[in-house]
Amino acid sequence: MSYRVVFVGAGNLATRLSVELKKNGCIIEQVYSRTFKSANRLALRLKTYFTTSPWKIMPDADIYFIALKDSAWEDVLPHAAFGNSLVVHCSGSMSLNSLKKYANNTGVFYPLQTFSKKSSVRFKQIPVFIEANSKKNEDVLLEIAGRISDKVSVMNSDNRLYLHISAVFACNFVNHFYAIAADILEKRGISFDLLRPLIQETAKKIQDTSPAEAQTGPAVRFDQNIITAHLNALQSFPEFREIYKKTSESIYHYQKNR
Amino acid sequence: MSYRVVFVGAGNLATRLSVELKKNGCIIEQVYSRTFKSANRLALRLKTYFTTSPWKIMPDADIYFIALKDSAWEDVLPHAAFGNSLVVHCSGSMSLNSLKKYANNTGVFYPLQTFSKKSSVRFKQIPVFIEANSKKNEDVLLEIAGRISDKVSVMNSDNRLYLHISAVFACNFVNHFYAIAADILEKRGISFDLLRPLIQETAKKIQDTSPAEAQTGPAVRFDQNIITAHLNALQSFPEFREIYKKTSESIYHYQKNR
Repeated sequence: MSYRVVFVGAGNLATRLSVELKKNGCIIEQVYSRTFKSANRLALRLKTYFTTSPWKIMPDADIYFIALKDSAWEDVLPHAAFGNSLVVHCSGSMSLNSLKKYANNTGVFYPLQTFSKKSSVRFKQIPVFIEANSKKNEDVLLEIAGRISDKVSVMNSDNRLYLHISAVFACNFVNHFYAIAADILEKRGISFDLLRPLIQETAKKIQDTSPAEAQTGPAVRFDQNIITAHLNALQSFPEFREIYKKTSESIYHYQKNR
Repeated sequence: MSYRVVFVGAGNLATRLSVELKKNGCIIEQVYSRTFKSANRLALRLKTYFTTSPWKIMPDADIYFIALKDSAWEDVLPHAAFGNSLVVHCSGSMSLNSLKKYANNTGVFYPLQTFSKKSSVRFKQIPVFIEANSKKNEDVLLEIAGRISDKVSVMNSDNRLYLHISAVFACNFVNHFYAIAADILEKRGISFDLLRPLIQETAKKIQDTSPAEAQTGPAVRFDQNIITAHLNALQSFPEFREIYKKTSESIYHYQKNR
């Protein structure tokens, strides 16, 4: 079936997802974004219409994908005439119920991946988590998700929240530590390229072993001399020194108690 | 040239490195480890001799590789008769000078990678950093390192320390966050397999972009609602809650000021 879809939001996730849905038989009828630039950019890419006015979000689409920061929902969603269309958000941490005040038919479509406008990802490998307020709506979302991903499952709001938290640790926080490493190296005039193989291997290693078993380094060995040397050296990076200390302590306690 | 080599230490690094050196024309004449089990295991693998007594470390080898925790050096190294042989440590964070009290000819041979006894790594891709107390010793180490790695360079002790610190962030700390994510999921009955593609993509993404640019997630968006929801949910994981808070703050400040 060719679902007629409206995207409310035009950020990284909206961009990747709308492009993928268009490739897989959905008709993207309109894009809403608060800013002209984002709305126009994504609409051009999808060869469709756009608006920057919440009250001009078109009525009667089959599905509305809400890919907005939740703090913006209240400025936008009450102005749209969703009627009995299916309204779906894409957030790991918002409950299904949070859409109830805006729409009669609600769902969640949460792809677990880090998106950027630039680099494209192989969507087929991305796990997508579905939830809906009725079996009928769930089936619609399962069918659409199955077109773009091989890893679709149903998950309730509570588990999805914890899944999102674990993704924040394993992706956003991890990436921040890459950034800290890059920053330290840059200030010493050392190329970040030297670290890239280690970063790859660290991610690869846990593809077939548990991270707790894979742990190496001074903290798990409780190598106090090295930790002290690092904390001394980080006196020139005070903003990273505290994180170093807390994380080392956390590793030590975690590994000791497991 | 067939260097005659003794390994002082039989942990993950010693295991990987000795196996690689043996494959590339070095003769591993002996392995020392404090414990019978480790010494015997590695010696069997290398088909060579071992000892658990520091004073039975054999004299007159060409090169001694010290792959011990530095806190164990003082118990072992004074008992070995190094004479004028080249004595090399493998630590990112120990200076070249720290070997001076034990030997006349000293060097550093630091492979930047996370090693485990189980999984083998493609050594050719691992950066190796060399330092030595003389040009002659430096040349010996550069030649040996060049046999097993395509990415050999000379680096002084001060820069190597910061390189090691950045590796602790990008590898050990990163892996701890994988472990935290796995732990949270396990306690919710959710499979860690769901996160593995995200972990791969996060590492892949920064192979051709800077980590600061690649950042996504609630902290960089300053999505206070989501952060609050996560902190509330983490009340059942108090040991991870503080790390979540500190790391989110660090991301926010880092991204704001760059």
